[in-house]
Amino acid sequence: MRHHDLIVIGAGSGNAVVDGSFAGLDVAVVEEKWFGGTCLNAGCIPSKMLAFAAHVASTVREAGTYDVDAELRAVRWRELRDRVFGRLDAAREEGRRGREADDGITVYGGRARFTGPRRLVVELPDGPVEVAADQIVIAAGGRPLVPPPVADSGLPYETSDTVMRVDAPPRHLAVLGGGYIAAELAEVFSEAGSAVTIVEKEERLLGPQDETVAELFTDLARDRYDLRLGREVTGVGGRPGALRLTLDDGSTVEADMLLVAAGRVPNSDRLDLDAAGVKTRDDGRIVVDAYQRTTAEGVFALGDICTPVPLKHVANREAKVVAHNLLHPDDLVSADHDGVPAAVFTRPQIASVGATEQDCRDRGLEYLVGTAQYADVAYGWAMEDTTGFCKVLAEPGTGRLLGAHLMGPQAPTLIQPLVLATTLGIDAATLADTPYWIHPALTEVVENALLDLGL
Amino acid sequence: MRHHDLIVIGAGSGNAVVDGSFAGLDVAVVEEKWFGGTCLNAGCIPSKMLAFAAHVASTVREAGTYDVDAELRAVRWRELRDRVFGRLDAAREEGRRGREADDGITVYGGRARFTGPRRLVVELPDGPVEVAADQIVIAAGGRPLVPPPVADSGLPYETSDTVMRVDAPPRHLAVLGGGYIAAELAEVFSEAGSAVTIVEKEERLLGPQDETVAELFTDLARDRYDLRLGREVTGVGGRPGALRLTLDDGSTVEADMLLVAAGRVPNSDRLDLDAAGVKTRDDGRIVVDAYQRTTAEGVFALGDICTPVPLKHVANREAKVVAHNLLHPDDLVSADHDGVPAAVFTRPQIASVGATEQDCRDRGLEYLVGTAQYADVAYGWAMEDTTGFCKVLAEPGTGRLLGAHLMGPQAPTLIQPLVLATTLGIDAATLADTPYWIHPALTEVVENALLDLGL
Repeated sequence: MRHHDLIVIGAGSGNAVVDGSFAGLDVAVVEEKWFGGTCLNAGCIPSKMLAFAAHVASTVREAGTYDVDAELRAVRWRELRDRVFGRLDAAREEGRRGREADDGITVYGGRARFTGPRRLVVELPDGPVEVAADQIVIAAGGRPLVPPPVADSGLPYETSDTVMRVDAPPRHLAVLGGGYIAAELAEVFSEAGSAVTIVEKEERLLGPQDETVAELFTDLARDRYDLRLGREVTGVGGRPGALRLTLDDGSTVEADMLLVAAGRVPNSDRLDLDAAGVKTRDDGRIVVDAYQRTTAEGVFALGDICTPVPLKHVANREAKVVAHNLLHPDDLVSADHDGVPAAVFTRPQIASVGATEQDCRDRGLEYLVGTAQYADVAYGWAMEDTTGFCKVLAEPGTGRLLGAHLMGPQAPTLIQPLVLATTLGIDAATLADTPYWIHPALTEVVENALLDLGL
Repeated sequence: MRHHDLIVIGAGSGNAVVDGSFAGLDVAVVEEKWFGGTCLNAGCIPSKMLAFAAHVASTVREAGTYDVDAELRAVRWRELRDRVFGRLDAAREEGRRGREADDGITVYGGRARFTGPRRLVVELPDGPVEVAADQIVIAAGGRPLVPPPVADSGLPYETSDTVMRVDAPPRHLAVLGGGYIAAELAEVFSEAGSAVTIVEKEERLLGPQDETVAELFTDLARDRYDLRLGREVTGVGGRPGALRLTLDDGSTVEADMLLVAAGRVPNSDRLDLDAAGVKTRDDGRIVVDAYQRTTAEGVFALGDICTPVPLKHVANREAKVVAHNLLHPDDLVSADHDGVPAAVFTRPQIASVGATEQDCRDRGLEYLVGTAQYADVAYGWAMEDTTGFCKVLAEPGTGRLLGAHLMGPQAPTLIQPLVLATTLGIDAATLADTPYWIHPALTEVVENALLDLGL
């Protein structure tokens, strides 16, 4: 059995653990599918590249609003897909080759499962191989959850793993789920020419967002999609290319393609973790302490397989923490999971950090609300924006920021000063009054929301 | 002679001085031309609204880059102009009517000049009126500088005061000047269909910007415009609609419209300031102390007529300072003129705060440079951006930010965390490492530039 100093399972964020500080160690990376992981291959990056093209298409369609006479002829899906994945697949292969070319790193291209403490078998194309290591990092990620009515139907369906690579947009796309993945991909296909029906069990899309955001986003989506809210799929019938979804109220949805975007589950069930002494929670996430250590000596975990916040910037932070802790057992550091911002790259874009208003209410917090509309700042006039807004929540008296929520163009960029203030404890009045805010930049909407707190 | 408690000369930023805390006082506002001042009527706001439409046009033209098949038919200039000024002229009139309807405020619609200390005559349509006040605020702004060869030619020319309101874009626009006003308006007319020649006496456009920004921006402009750099206009000939500019090397430029954007001068020469005991600098700016007090007792100044940084967000800050100091003579406050950010709304957009690299070199500072390209972050991939970058300058050792410069989409929004850090003294390493930076938001280009400092 080959013994390594370190084995990393999963070459997504796990791959980032192994930087120059591991030179001289015998390191192995096990990856059964995609170097670069979900983010590069089927997640954040391709979805944003497709969403940007969708945004260009919508800008063309709405050019008349700005007195620009333009015609949108088509979104050339196949060229778009090939541009996106031509770049990303090349980046993936470059990542893999870089690791393979490194004398200090062994790459195992197969699925790993534990056979004992810090001992694994990897299923390689030419047979299984047993490996062990002093330290192991589990970064095997997650996968789309497929509800039984879909899984059991025997009929074809897509997930975020596959749908971005299809040969052509469907005529009618049924989307199962109303979270951020559903929202982003619905928009991509809608702009590419598909009619879209969204089936969501809650009464609102983007339910975990601040209630004002979720409510307004749902209202806007109603004008663009056939929304079936408060509904679940009970059965999938028909035939490939002519599917028929039955919902729990007996209504039906006809579609030639079904996208399942109903949540994700950690890949912990595929690793025989019991053999390793690695415990998991009821929801499948690996149990880790503040230092990313699992319940098994010498075994760390990071990213979607364990984290409370399954976002790439969190996985990156956890990867840095694990890299440090592997090499500095007497000087452990931890990743902060408070104040993690998140964005949805729909149109309008959405960004948030900290508590929602419903969180504040549920926790019985006293809070102030400050809001500002894009329509009330000069750059919002330039954009002819009528729906965008910024909402900030702050503690009375201290002005400590509890949460901030933006919906509108550039929201994922506009949120950053609010993230910074939340993380560093800069109060709302200082944030509003001390730095200059460029006139007439879009940042004035953040300034105005802060001023609206009346602190 | 009517005596007021307070007279404000200029209803641009000066108008913002008079808020609710002046209720009960007898206040006069003198405005000879435009409520809302340069910003609303002929500056920041209309130029940004026109620039946004130009950006939409360029997005349509370049839609193919994103595999979107689109045709740009025309920019409908007259509708665009009427949309922009329909909104802004209404805002101006609303501002004027609001003041006129206020019982505590007298509006004088004419030009003011001093006749003695805190004593003025205002030229009203039905004759001059004399007024005096306990306190006076001079906020009479500035105007475009028109060089003698143009002024003396007797031939028509436009400035930023007039060009945005013309009936049709010219076939060929000659722009005199290469600063931010010239750059923004050149782009607006270029996208609206004009051929553009820019005559600039320096070798680069946007000369006061960081040298990397100015150099790259000039290179990009060279592909779009006929640039005559290092050249001055010595004469203007021809006839209206068929102008012929002669340059200092004997070369010529034919154009049907001339836009003079060669700098601005304060309106201090129009106020008979000597009579008031208000001194000015050699460049015409009124001398003020840190509290915005002029050399005359009871007379304050703010905005373009006195400020070292003639930008609207600075004038707004100075207006707040003056409002406070008028009412609290024993508790004076001052406006900070360090760390003032600025933006140029061209394509690519530009934003900056603090020192340029040439400033650092000229002052003999030790400094580190961190840079990152839009092309190296995921959202830059989505944008297919090939020219955008972020450059940060920091003090070795402490990591104190000396300056930051961005060129690319959303630059005026992306700069804000850097403004905040500069103003509040947050060092570069803390700024990079403590808050999360959303993946894959465009903010990653700022994060990467900070990390590139190697602190």
